Amino acid sequence: MDKKIYLINGPNLNYLGFREPEIYGRTTLADLEESLANQSIKLGAQLVCFQSNYEGAIIDRLYEAETNSASGIILNPGAFTHYSYAIRDAIASISVPVIEVHISNVHAREPFRHQSVTAPVTKGQIVGLGLNGYELALRALLTT
Amino acid sequence: MDKKIYLINGPNLNYLGFREPEIYGRTTLADLEESLANQSIKLGAQLVCFQSNYEGAIIDRLYEAETNSASGIILNPGAFTHYSYAIRDAIASISVPVIEVHISNVHAREPFRHQSVTAPVTKGQIVGLGLNGYELALRALLTT
Amino acid sequence: MDKKIYLINGPNLNYLGFREPEIYGRTTLADLEESLANQSIKLGAQLVCFQSNYEGAIIDRLYEAETNSASGIILNPGAFTHYSYAIRDAIASISVPVIEVHISNVHAREPFRHQSVTAPVTKGQIVGLGLNGYELALRALLTT
Amino acid sequence: MDKKIYLINGPNLNYLGFREPEIYGRTTLADLEESLANQSIKLGAQLVCFQSNYEGAIIDRLYEAETNSASGIILNPGAFTHYSYAIRDAIASISVPVIEVHISNVHAREPFRHQSVTAPVTKGQIVGLGLNGYELALRALLTT
Amino acid sequence: MDKKIYLINGPNLNYLGFREPEIYGRTTLADLEESLANQSIKLGAQLVCFQSNYEGAIIDRLYEAETNSASGIILNPGAFTHYSYAIRDAIASISVPVIEVHISNVHAREPFRHQSVTAPVTKGQIVGLGLNGYELALRALLTT
Amino acid sequence: MDKKIYLINGPNLNYLGFREPEIYGRTTLADLEESLANQSIKLGAQLVCFQSNYEGAIIDRLYEAETNSASGIILNPGAFTHYSYAIRDAIASISVPVIEVHISNVHAREPFRHQSVTAPVTKGQIVGLGLNGYELALRALLTT
Amino acid sequence: MDKKIYLINGPNLNYLGFREPEIYGRTTLADLEESLANQSIKLGAQLVCFQSNYEGAIIDRLYEAETNSASGIILNPGAFTHYSYAIRDAIASISVPVIEVHISNVHAREPFRHQSVTAPVTKGQIVGLGLNGYELALRALLTT
Amino acid sequence: MDKKIYLINGPNLNYLGFREPEIYGRTTLADLEESLANQSIKLGAQLVCFQSNYEGAIIDRLYEAETNSASGIILNPGAFTHYSYAIRDAIASISVPVIEVHISNVHAREPFRHQSVTAPVTKGQIVGLGLNGYELALRALLTT
Amino acid sequence: MDKKIYLINGPNLNYLGFREPEIYGRTTLADLEESLANQSIKLGAQLVCFQSNYEGAIIDRLYEAETNSASGIILNPGAFTHYSYAIRDAIASISVPVIEVHISNVHAREPFRHQSVTAPVTKGQIVGLGLNGYELALRALLTT
Amino acid sequence: MDKKIYLINGPNLNYLGFREPEIYGRTTLADLEESLANQSIKLGAQLVCFQSNYEGAIIDRLYEAETNSASGIILNPGAFTHYSYAIRDAIASISVPVIEVHISNVHAREPFRHQSVTAPVTKGQIVGLGLNGYELALRALLTT
Amino acid sequence: MDKKIYLINGPNLNYLGFREPEIYGRTTLADLEESLANQSIKLGAQLVCFQSNYEGAIIDRLYEAETNSASGIILNPGAFTHYSYAIRDAIASISVPVIEVHISNVHAREPFRHQSVTAPVTKGQIVGLGLNGYELALRALLTT
Amino acid sequence: MDKKIYLINGPNLNYLGFREPEIYGRTTLADLEESLANQSIKLGAQLVCFQSNYEGAIIDRLYEAETNSASGIILNPGAFTHYSYAIRDAIASISVPVIEVHISNVHAREPFRHQSVTAPVTKGQIVGLGLNGYELALRALLTT
Repeated sequence: MDKKIYLINGPNLNYLGFREPEIYGRTTLADLEESLANQSIKLGAQLVCFQSNYEGAIIDRLYEAETNSASGIILNPGAFTHYSYAIRDAIASISVPVIEVHISNVHAREPFRHQSVTAPVTKGQIVGLGLNGYELALRALLTT
Repeated sequence: MDKKIYLINGPNLNYLGFREPEIYGRTTLADLEESLANQSIKLGAQLVCFQSNYEGAIIDRLYEAETNSASGIILNPGAFTHYSYAIRDAIASISVPVIEVHISNVHAREPFRHQSVTAPVTKGQIVGLGLNGYELALRALLTT
Repeated sequence: MDKKIYLINGPNLNYLGFREPEIYGRTTLADLEESLANQSIKLGAQLVCFQSNYEGAIIDRLYEAETNSASGIILNPGAFTHYSYAIRDAIASISVPVIEVHISNVHAREPFRHQSVTAPVTKGQIVGLGLNGYELALRALLTT
Repeated sequence: MDKKIYLINGPNLNYLGFREPEIYGRTTLADLEESLANQSIKLGAQLVCFQSNYEGAIIDRLYEAETNSASGIILNPGAFTHYSYAIRDAIASISVPVIEVHISNVHAREPFRHQSVTAPVTKGQIVGLGLNGYELALRALLTT
Repeated sequence: MDKKIYLINGPNLNYLGFREPEIYGRTTLADLEESLANQSIKLGAQLVCFQSNYEGAIIDRLYEAETNSASGIILNPGAFTHYSYAIRDAIASISVPVIEVHISNVHAREPFRHQSVTAPVTKGQIVGLGLNGYELALRALLTT
Repeated sequence: MDKKIYLINGPNLNYLGFREPEIYGRTTLADLEESLANQSIKLGAQLVCFQSNYEGAIIDRLYEAETNSASGIILNPGAFTHYSYAIRDAIASISVPVIEVHISNVHAREPFRHQSVTAPVTKGQIVGLGLNGYELALRALLTT
Repeated sequence: MDKKIYLINGPNLNYLGFREPEIYGRTTLADLEESLANQSIKLGAQLVCFQSNYEGAIIDRLYEAETNSASGIILNPGAFTHYSYAIRDAIASISVPVIEVHISNVHAREPFRHQSVTAPVTKGQIVGLGLNGYELALRALLTT
Repeated sequence: MDKKIYLINGPNLNYLGFREPEIYGRTTLADLEESLANQSIKLGAQLVCFQSNYEGAIIDRLYEAETNSASGIILNPGAFTHYSYAIRDAIASISVPVIEVHISNVHAREPFRHQSVTAPVTKGQIVGLGLNGYELALRALLTT
Repeated sequence: MDKKIYLINGPNLNYLGFREPEIYGRTTLADLEESLANQSIKLGAQLVCFQSNYEGAIIDRLYEAETNSASGIILNPGAFTHYSYAIRDAIASISVPVIEVHISNVHAREPFRHQSVTAPVTKGQIVGLGLNGYELALRALLTT
Repeated sequence: MDKKIYLINGPNLNYLGFREPEIYGRTTLADLEESLANQSIKLGAQLVCFQSNYEGAIIDRLYEAETNSASGIILNPGAFTHYSYAIRDAIASISVPVIEVHISNVHAREPFRHQSVTAPVTKGQIVGLGLNGYELALRALLTT
Repeated sequence: MDKKIYLINGPNLNYLGFREPEIYGRTTLADLEESLANQSIKLGAQLVCFQSNYEGAIIDRLYEAETNSASGIILNPGAFTHYSYAIRDAIASISVPVIEVHISNVHAREPFRHQSVTAPVTKGQIVGLGLNGYELALRALLTT
Repeated sequence: MDKKIYLINGPNLNYLGFREPEIYGRTTLADLEESLANQSIKLGAQLVCFQSNYEGAIIDRLYEAETNSASGIILNPGAFTHYSYAIRDAIASISVPVIEVHISNVHAREPFRHQSVTAPVTKGQIVGLGLNGYELALRALLTT
């Protein structure tokens, strides 16, 4: 049976490709999910994709990944990164490894984006490498 | 076709008229929405009203306003004003102008109410002028 | 007619008994709710139990308790304790007394857990006394 | 007898229309005062206009408005907003309601502009709505 | 042989019932000690009562409780809560469990009262539940 | 020849007796000046009285006192206390001793009133003793 | 019967006249107490003098002054000024007015001396006027 | 026609040569102005000299320099350096280049002198080089 | 001709494999460099390896990479990450893209490790993914 | 006549050997005092030993050492290190040199232990060298 | 014999003319050194030029200047300005006067550039006047 | 075979005896090294002496001490104490115990000297005891 990887995108990533394209590019979330799903298949895994603007929904999905014995979670918490201690607690509660991804280099933007309350309980972070960061995270989860 | 204006009220404003009336008065949310809807019609616009205690629901509605080509959004984010970077990102992602309204003079209250994380990405703010602030915001969106 | 007490547990408490058992023990939320419900009956009250990972859902329930003339609310806001000014405003808006409960001694853990934005508007807090804290809160609400 | 409204503009607003026009536009202070005076007449009020780069002169005028039983004061304190506790005390000492106006969205500019020491003692603030903000303030003072 | 519980009250609690009765009520310290002693007997324990305005005396008593193999300590450190690292060290040095009690909801009062330097080394805290908090602490020490 | 004492009152003290009488009482500035002038004569000194809402005018008067070889200055800088480093430098530049007086107990009011930038370069301060503080300052300057 | 005034000096003031004479002068505590006692008699009052290096002893004496219906307390808390919230609470608990005296101008010395935790609950403060400050305090308590 | 250079000195510089001569030396303002005026003539420019203790007067002069097409402004804002955002805004509003001069090395003095709110909008600063700093500024404005 | 990639490791990484192996593992720097060099060849690039405990040596190498037209730099600045503004300026001065790598999850360690002064001027960061992070960085530089 | 050295140990050091032995070891205070007294005799000095949990008692003893013309004081202020400005003032008031000793490396423990308010007025500090630190202090006082 | 002036440039200034030319211009370090050397000769001095990216090398050169009895040092510490307390100590240790030069107006750039740890121990600073600042520094050292 | 002890002195200590002799005395580094070497021989150890103004060189030597199985390191990091996290990491990486020595009482000097980033990973610190501190450190390393 294939490994399962969860791809969880947080608030405003539904608007990827439309929102501030000078920062985030023009690829849509659907494009990204399709491309990563294909990539997953090549690496022998199945990708479960999810996006929500609700903090609670993201927490629910983190537990679902745990229940479904996922091999890893690629999480872009969007702005929740900066204040959702609830998501942080969920990550700390489960045993599935989580890699945090940010498309843009948050450290080169507004000060509030420099702090991640979730980073301390994730396995690691990939920041500023564009959509490529998602693929690197996938590879890190499946090849180590 | 009429212009569309979105009126979005955040958490606890469902309790307007009942909650701390010495601060917020005794007009209910239904009263406010009806009065503003009438006012909108006079100014040649249609008012879409929404209230939620869910951050995610407010974000969804901000995108709906964008999709529906609204002319403006009157937003009272309630306590989300002080920490919802997710709502901030949604406002920054859309092109519809947003005016932030606070009924009470937040600067005369507890320190945590002095900071607005959404203000920097709105067009402007109207603070402390009671329910009248909503009507001034409506006028500002429709007459400039 | 019996008094009504609301027991409201916030994010990640659905995972009680599974999550970090060295901190939270191995009793599940279902166990806790059943035990407290029995205890309530003995004290002549009915316990209404609720858990959610959604901030909005918790706010909705606080208003429900008010509408249903509850005699008290036992609230463990989980990580929302540290940033949900929206829940704080809801507590301040209703007249039902709220006791805030934390299972672990949050003051002996990470700095972010030391601040409670909800504490100032609750009646009181019981911290670090394990699941026993819920029962003490129940007793405090029903015997004073 | 007509109501009296005072329009008091602080430092550097003498240079309105010339100064940083990409932020403040090209309307001069004289244009603004004339336009608002006309608007006041329509609303049955007389507008007393004043501008000064001197903190002391602004304080003197606030007391004059009190002595002359003005119905309201529209105050753009300019940079004094950020440090003049003396103007704050004057506002707090008089009974005439004051609305604070800022042409640009100060919350989207340098950090020092985010703090207003006068806001806590004013009735309310209108921020970021351009010269239109003055007119909304006039309306707020005369129609509520 | 009965269990021993120490009740230690810090500075200014000698004036309980006289001092700021709108905050602390009109029950005197003697009343409180008598009532808790009776309660202790019912729960099969002996209560040792002590109050002092001297930090050193409180530390001495904490060691006495250790030496006398007390089952628990109910400690209201009064204002020492906010700065007595010496009391903190004493609590950390002994093995008897300590529950910290505050009569009023300190989180709703002046900022300096929000910090407890002793809390991290106590077993838990009961805050804001009035004199009832002492009884809940007694119960927590004797029934768990 | 008589000694000269300068009495310098800063912004908003022109409104003494009218402004926030629950804090400052109902004695006017004229009353105060007359009473202190009489008191000075009894102590063998001449009182020079001055009040201004202009920071620059106060600085000018401080130098005048120096030029006129005054024996002392009683200074209530009003809100300038909290930010006028220019007045501070003037006090430091002259050799006449300055006693800073505040009518109300500023340490029991808003946090911004707790800091005095002028205090470090004055001889001393008398705070919170009402109008009596001026007379004590006069006595301190003339009898030591 | 004569009025009673308490003179309470805190830690290290036993060493007055010996300690850092360039700051505190060469008058001893005994000299000061004698001189003030004589002064009190002239003003029709009896002076009760006390000095201690123990925080608890000072608190005990504050309550004694209350019990003995003193007319006022002159308190130089020494270094306790900067951290003794326990003394602060005692001052707030009693009804006798307290004037806080500091011999040197604490605002011109180390930063830790700039903060007084007791000042907010005293009637007022006299700072930097040397031993003369005690006499001015006596006069303020007996003549207003 | 000669170039025009404005020399604007802020508060307390009227007292140059008299004030704290161990820091500022014994040259008076008149001496300095005369010497720089002569120097200007040699460099083919006319020097307009101004000093005021009034913030508003300095702002007025900055606009005058702009109106008179000055080639540069040498500004020693005195203590206004540390808090006058109003002067800062004036500098930012005009196109004449401003060089900020401080006679003493402010970075080796009290912490409040380390911050300059005007520096960010000036062309540059010359600090700590004594009265020579003015001449270097003159040279910088006229030879680059 | 092959592309050139620079691998630059900062202070203490010479001790990799020996130093705190529970954090950094037992692979030595030589092992890492060899493995990455092989990987580079497969991806059609040449790897230039460098390690130094000297900040200046690292800056010199960053300019060498620029001069040699490298295609990218993989930089683990070690502890320099947290304070070397000089390395930051070097990165900002060159046009070669830099990816910052940290072996351990610095956000789960001491607070001083949470800040990176170099991150804002790099292209992106890969944190906490062990030695695998270097390979992901290599891939990111060579395949995008 | 022999030199006199005072050994003063602050709060909780009465419990040395029992308290947190993994930090402080198993030697008791009596053992330590005896060993140091013997060591003193060898170095030609007499050791006066004192321990108290009372801040006031420690201050009294510091003055006693001064009165008795001690040659030096070895002081471990325990937790008073972090807040007792009263002890600091006593040290500054006397002429006997004081060496501050801490058994454990306080800089490797909780942040509150990093600050010493007494260190600035002592001659020096010996930190983290276990009980050996006391002997080194003795040697430093007697051999330099 | 000619006077000796040292010109010491810190990290990244080797890249002057290439690095961020919109900030630093296109003149190279070699150009600057040559031009200043010529200028020195005219003023009767010899210029010793040095640049390094190594903090230690700069410290060594500061001592060399002292040993060689230089008349002055022109120092642009580059980014070391913001954290090198080691360079600060070296400047403080020598008697040769140092003038700190910054090409750009650091106060108009990132916050970390606003702090100079070296400024307090230099004679003065010249900031934001471009390469002209070096020449003004030379003049200041040789003509005062 | 003799034990080896490393004596490592950081930046500016090459100038010992010349630099600020009122703080550091007139003994040179050569004197100190010779005296300590003799002392080491008496205690049966060999002293390896090293001084550098280069942070990297100090790190290299720390590893050399580890490689050479030194029994201890006496380290005076000079100003690196306050910011060199790289030296801190080196100390943490090796197993040789390090004692940190400061000649002057850094806690009585500028605030930046109060923080040591290296102290938490050393065995202990000896501060303010002059050159004697080095000898005490030697003794501590060789006799415990």
